[in-house]
Amino acid sequence: MQGQSQQQAYDRGITIFSPDGRLYQVEYAREAVKRGTASVGIRTPAGVVLAADRQVDSSLMEPSSVEKIHKADDHVGIASAGHVADARRLVDLARRRAQGEQLRYGQTIGVETLTRAVTDHIQEYTQTGGARPFGVALLVGGVEDGEPRLLETDPSGTDYEWQAAAIGSNRDVIQGFLEERYRPDLDLDGGLELALSALSEPEDDPVNAGDVDVATIGTDDETFRSVPEDRLESILAEIDGDESDE
Amino acid sequence: MQGQSQQQAYDRGITIFSPDGRLYQVEYAREAVKRGTASVGIRTPAGVVLAADRQVDSSLMEPSSVEKIHKADDHVGIASAGHVADARRLVDLARRRAQGEQLRYGQTIGVETLTRAVTDHIQEYTQTGGARPFGVALLVGGVEDGEPRLLETDPSGTDYEWQAAAIGSNRDVIQGFLEERYRPDLDLDGGLELALSALSEPEDDPVNAGDVDVATIGTDDETFRSVPEDRLESILAEIDGDESDE
Amino acid sequence: MQGQSQQQAYDRGITIFSPDGRLYQVEYAREAVKRGTASVGIRTPAGVVLAADRQVDSSLMEPSSVEKIHKADDHVGIASAGHVADARRLVDLARRRAQGEQLRYGQTIGVETLTRAVTDHIQEYTQTGGARPFGVALLVGGVEDGEPRLLETDPSGTDYEWQAAAIGSNRDVIQGFLEERYRPDLDLDGGLELALSALSEPEDDPVNAGDVDVATIGTDDETFRSVPEDRLESILAEIDGDESDE
Amino acid sequence: MQGQSQQQAYDRGITIFSPDGRLYQVEYAREAVKRGTASVGIRTPAGVVLAADRQVDSSLMEPSSVEKIHKADDHVGIASAGHVADARRLVDLARRRAQGEQLRYGQTIGVETLTRAVTDHIQEYTQTGGARPFGVALLVGGVEDGEPRLLETDPSGTDYEWQAAAIGSNRDVIQGFLEERYRPDLDLDGGLELALSALSEPEDDPVNAGDVDVATIGTDDETFRSVPEDRLESILAEIDGDESDE
Amino acid sequence: MQGQSQQQAYDRGITIFSPDGRLYQVEYAREAVKRGTASVGIRTPAGVVLAADRQVDSSLMEPSSVEKIHKADDHVGIASAGHVADARRLVDLARRRAQGEQLRYGQTIGVETLTRAVTDHIQEYTQTGGARPFGVALLVGGVEDGEPRLLETDPSGTDYEWQAAAIGSNRDVIQGFLEERYRPDLDLDGGLELALSALSEPEDDPVNAGDVDVATIGTDDETFRSVPEDRLESILAEIDGDESDE
Amino acid sequence: MQGQSQQQAYDRGITIFSPDGRLYQVEYAREAVKRGTASVGIRTPAGVVLAADRQVDSSLMEPSSVEKIHKADDHVGIASAGHVADARRLVDLARRRAQGEQLRYGQTIGVETLTRAVTDHIQEYTQTGGARPFGVALLVGGVEDGEPRLLETDPSGTDYEWQAAAIGSNRDVIQGFLEERYRPDLDLDGGLELALSALSEPEDDPVNAGDVDVATIGTDDETFRSVPEDRLESILAEIDGDESDE
Amino acid sequence: MQGQSQQQAYDRGITIFSPDGRLYQVEYAREAVKRGTASVGIRTPAGVVLAADRQVDSSLMEPSSVEKIHKADDHVGIASAGHVADARRLVDLARRRAQGEQLRYGQTIGVETLTRAVTDHIQEYTQTGGARPFGVALLVGGVEDGEPRLLETDPSGTDYEWQAAAIGSNRDVIQGFLEERYRPDLDLDGGLELALSALSEPEDDPVNAGDVDVATIGTDDETFRSVPEDRLESILAEIDGDESDE
Repeated sequence: MQGQSQQQAYDRGITIFSPDGRLYQVEYAREAVKRGTASVGIRTPAGVVLAADRQVDSSLMEPSSVEKIHKADDHVGIASAGHVADARRLVDLARRRAQGEQLRYGQTIGVETLTRAVTDHIQEYTQTGGARPFGVALLVGGVEDGEPRLLETDPSGTDYEWQAAAIGSNRDVIQGFLEERYRPDLDLDGGLELALSALSEPEDDPVNAGDVDVATIGTDDETFRSVPEDRLESILAEIDGDESDE
Repeated sequence: MQGQSQQQAYDRGITIFSPDGRLYQVEYAREAVKRGTASVGIRTPAGVVLAADRQVDSSLMEPSSVEKIHKADDHVGIASAGHVADARRLVDLARRRAQGEQLRYGQTIGVETLTRAVTDHIQEYTQTGGARPFGVALLVGGVEDGEPRLLETDPSGTDYEWQAAAIGSNRDVIQGFLEERYRPDLDLDGGLELALSALSEPEDDPVNAGDVDVATIGTDDETFRSVPEDRLESILAEIDGDESDE
Repeated sequence: MQGQSQQQAYDRGITIFSPDGRLYQVEYAREAVKRGTASVGIRTPAGVVLAADRQVDSSLMEPSSVEKIHKADDHVGIASAGHVADARRLVDLARRRAQGEQLRYGQTIGVETLTRAVTDHIQEYTQTGGARPFGVALLVGGVEDGEPRLLETDPSGTDYEWQAAAIGSNRDVIQGFLEERYRPDLDLDGGLELALSALSEPEDDPVNAGDVDVATIGTDDETFRSVPEDRLESILAEIDGDESDE
Repeated sequence: MQGQSQQQAYDRGITIFSPDGRLYQVEYAREAVKRGTASVGIRTPAGVVLAADRQVDSSLMEPSSVEKIHKADDHVGIASAGHVADARRLVDLARRRAQGEQLRYGQTIGVETLTRAVTDHIQEYTQTGGARPFGVALLVGGVEDGEPRLLETDPSGTDYEWQAAAIGSNRDVIQGFLEERYRPDLDLDGGLELALSALSEPEDDPVNAGDVDVATIGTDDETFRSVPEDRLESILAEIDGDESDE
Repeated sequence: MQGQSQQQAYDRGITIFSPDGRLYQVEYAREAVKRGTASVGIRTPAGVVLAADRQVDSSLMEPSSVEKIHKADDHVGIASAGHVADARRLVDLARRRAQGEQLRYGQTIGVETLTRAVTDHIQEYTQTGGARPFGVALLVGGVEDGEPRLLETDPSGTDYEWQAAAIGSNRDVIQGFLEERYRPDLDLDGGLELALSALSEPEDDPVNAGDVDVATIGTDDETFRSVPEDRLESILAEIDGDESDE
Repeated sequence: MQGQSQQQAYDRGITIFSPDGRLYQVEYAREAVKRGTASVGIRTPAGVVLAADRQVDSSLMEPSSVEKIHKADDHVGIASAGHVADARRLVDLARRRAQGEQLRYGQTIGVETLTRAVTDHIQEYTQTGGARPFGVALLVGGVEDGEPRLLETDPSGTDYEWQAAAIGSNRDVIQGFLEERYRPDLDLDGGLELALSALSEPEDDPVNAGDVDVATIGTDDETFRSVPEDRLESILAEIDGDESDE
Repeated sequence: MQGQSQQQAYDRGITIFSPDGRLYQVEYAREAVKRGTASVGIRTPAGVVLAADRQVDSSLMEPSSVEKIHKADDHVGIASAGHVADARRLVDLARRRAQGEQLRYGQTIGVETLTRAVTDHIQEYTQTGGARPFGVALLVGGVEDGEPRLLETDPSGTDYEWQAAAIGSNRDVIQGFLEERYRPDLDLDGGLELALSALSEPEDDPVNAGDVDVATIGTDDETFRSVPEDRLESILAEIDGDESDE
């Protein structure tokens, strides 16, 4: 895709400003995010839905080992896109941070506080020499004081709050689909349906239940729950039916 | 905008002097500030007004999460322009510094003292190898001993005090507008009106109330207050009326 | 195979992102894995089989010293492909981690927990400057709570779980063979036969019993056992017979 | 002023000798000094005068915030030219050093001792790798044992003592003017007049009282005193009168 | 042998992967081994023989000071080829390790355990930046639990076990000779004869007794013994007779 | 004097050997010494004379602040040539070392011991990466056990003992003059005369008493004494007379 | 002798392997040794002779300050060739090591043990990044258990034992001369004569007694003794006579 000499040029360097004020290493890390499979997050009054494509290269690979949705705490889940091992490190950081809050203050950590701990860590890796940025974006979903929250972290260390958001490959297509279809009064089932439809959009064909990783954090029990494959299949069947109806 | 070979050249390096005595990394960091959306600060006898444009890429993004005006202490607010994650780190530094003053000496930190703590930190990142400068400018506004103060920090670690100032994209246009319209005897409402007019100037069209983040720190209660959207809408309506009158 | 000037270019550098979001040092480390002899892992309900080719350059070399299958704990084995000395360091890490678990908590470490300790270590070497990534892939097989587990680590620090997997030279050919022949209801003997057949596939000729290193971890006694050469010979004889039958 | 490729070459490097025995980074730091607005110091038997131009970019900027004359201790003032944030760091160092002397030994620090503490710090930044030199020159004026002293520090870490000296932009013109006009028997008023005349010389037009920062340290009370703007105005009026007389 | 510009290119760099997964610095260190004079090791049921060529540049040099066979412990000897000073450091490491085992656990260190301590150290120097690999290969021979052992270490940090092995210059010729002539039932005298014949092979002429360094570690007393020059002479005379007979 | 591209090449690097065994950074540091004004030292049976040119750029500069002769201890003086701030650091090191000897052992430090402490420090800066060599040469003169001593340090960290020596600009001319005129039986006055004549030699015209810095350390009182300007004037007058006589 | 661009290339770099397995920085350090004046060592049954040329640039330099033969301990002397300041550091290391042995164990250090302490230090500087090798060779001569010993250290950290050896400029000519003339049954006077003849060989003319530094360590009193100039003169006269006789 690129010439040999260009590859070589980027085998060395640190994160500094270009003459037009850009941080190229951060921008290249964003490209690493785009190379990862897509994840989406949907915030509904009844809770947050996180859903992710998982690329399984071989029929002999355990899909469950291609973890794209991680439980950070009882009430917080994290979906990732990009460099898998980088994601795991940030998720581990989030888990330790959540446990620390529990241990030190005896209380559940807020979704935004938790996200900031992660983005502070990401930012440091964009400023201090001798390390590359994290090549991963995260969607952090959870319930805080009864309110559903959905935040995104990017490789610059910035965080954004969303009603519905997509990260990873085909982000623009999926985000466009979400903007068109999202309604603020969705229930959790509606959120699940929208999430799966969104992931199906780029290929214009429903994803397979076995190829997605989906979880919800409801406002009722404030608990992270993986959605089982049979549940996903029935939703996907419904979507397919709806599509046929159109 | 620039050729591939120039990008590569700036992927490496540290902050050193050029033959004509310039620090290019600091100058490029100033370009990063110009790439950020604009913020303005207005000092009036009745207090300080901080106002900032916020760029929201998608209708599904929570505008409130694109934070451009930060409360640093009860009596101090900070508006930023440039690299968002860098701004957050400096704001966090300011908050910890303000809390420390309270804890150690039982007193409220001065606006200038607080700004200097921030600019000292910025300067160090321009001199010590292995790190890039901060790609952000801040407007620090507050009340100190009953007096309104408005200071700016730039990526070199210099601070300036202003009656009214703009940072970020279209800085020159907005600052020119402020120089023309600013009157030292403005009241807070006049300050709010001037701030919103200034942000509207580059596009020659009033900004939307939902696209700006505005706060005041009045001399009366010396308290940071976000200005609610409906208040912004009525001021903008008034500006529009005034414009039509002209 | 490559020109002099290209070699020189890669004698220097650290692990950073390329403009298209790739980490070339990690990708080159994957090439180092492909330069190593092949290893395969087979998970059956009765336990896990690990088998590895060992390249012996001279009739005077002790084949046993070309260690490709390592015992990490009583219930966990590790097969490697790639840079031999790098593999030994990661195996040592795994052993210390397993012993530590036993010493601190008086319990046997989980296969996945053990693998994660290894992949966390691998990931750090892809992000921190001044060190190269590990040029090795591992297959970690073991029994955890009575269940057989088979995980792979790659040079990026990612781990995957498999029913059956191949690493090292001719990986694609061998993995294709496994996908075709693997049955989830294999017994350990069937697993051994499949493993040896898979390693024989690239050359289309049965491997010699003396040129492979094979071990099993059965669910019955949860114990790592090297398979003796005479046992391998009788299995290979059977494979040869089966092949002739076809 | 210079080509793109030259800029890039100086975005990297450390302070080392050139073949003709020069330290280019130190020489470039001297260029940074020349880019700053001018400061002058005048030593008279009655005390020391420090005066500095201050460049105010906008009518809305508080001139007082463009600090060019700093009080280092009750009896010592420092005028600076060059990189503003670097100057602040050195002034802070001087202040801490003066306070330390007071705290530890209960005595006022000598002007030369104080200057040496600063130049030692400057020298270290020219020899140790990983940092750039300080891009600033200082004029340190004060009273020591009843005697007025005026010292200069340059970016190499050298100090010089002067009867009258200029630093910053147009140094050569101003220093020439001082050499022509300086008389050792000036009183403080004469010193003030000479200082303001010298700053006015390059433009051949009296400076504005609002555009200069002036302070004196008299031998009578050994105390740093800022000169108020009205006093400056009357002196400037007198200069103007004298000029007209010629 | 090589151009000036190529030399210069290799005066800088660290140990990283090339695009085809190779570690050039390690491969160049292997070239340093080939530049050293040859050493051979022979394992017989009665013990291990280590023999090494020593290059003496001048008739005035003490041959004994060109140490190629080192006693690591009472029961372990080490022959080296390559960078002499690097060899000494690894031999010192082995000695300290052997003494430590004795002091801490009151027992004799195993030959393999000792070799692994050395190869772990070698591997670290191939992965951590800021250091070059060790430019030396070792043959570690000894007796462990009554069994003779012969291991090799290479500059990558890999170890191999051998019946008979050669390292250093002309390795391929000598190893070929060993593969042809080695018999597993050799007695120590047969081993000595084979070792000296092997070192004589490249020149096709018996080596001089004064130009070789030879030691044995027998299974009977498990003790490192240097072979005196007169003993070597009588063996060489015998070889010469045998050669003549052919 | 040199092209732009050559300057740039020397803005980066560390002190390493060239192919012909030279340390260029040390040689360039010697050039820095030559760029400094000249100093001479004369050893006579009655004591040591140190004399130095001082370059005063402006009539308003205090000549005494261009310090070229430093008192290191009561019985030791140091003359310097080259980078002024580097000289001050080495002189400070010498002073601390002399004081330490007094404090720890209650005795006066030897001239050679003191010089070695300085040259050891200089040598370290030529071998350890990340720092440049010291760009200064020193003449260390003093009395030790009643004997006058005169030593030189150079930027490589070597020291030499002299009867009479010159450092700095025009060294070769001045040293030639000293070799021609020096007599071992000079008294202190003769030494002073020779020192001033030597400094006058390059311009072929007596130096001004105000432009030289001169000190003696006599064997009688073993005490460093600055020579006052009037004394210098009378000596210079005598030299002038002698010259006229010729 | 070499072009400008080649010099520049060697102003940067660390000690790493070239493709043909060489360490260029070490080889360049050997060139630095060749640039130094010659030293020779002669071992006789009656003791060791060390002799060194000393280059005195000026008649005013104290020859004794150009120290080429150093006393390391009562029974050990060291002659050096190459970078003078590097030699002093290694000699200091040897002295501290010898004193430490005395203090800790109350015994005299062995000549070989002492040499190894030095070569270990030298080797480290060839492997660890950020420092250059030592540009010096040493001849370490002494008496150990009544036996005379003569060892050489080179810049790679290797040591060799000699009957007679030369280091520094014209090494090949002098070593050839020694090989021709050395007899193992020399007495100390014979050794002194041979040493001085050897140093005279390159110029084919006897050296001056004042231009050489000579010492002996006899087996009788095991004590380092400098040979006085008159003794040298009478030996040189004898050599001259012998030469004339031929």
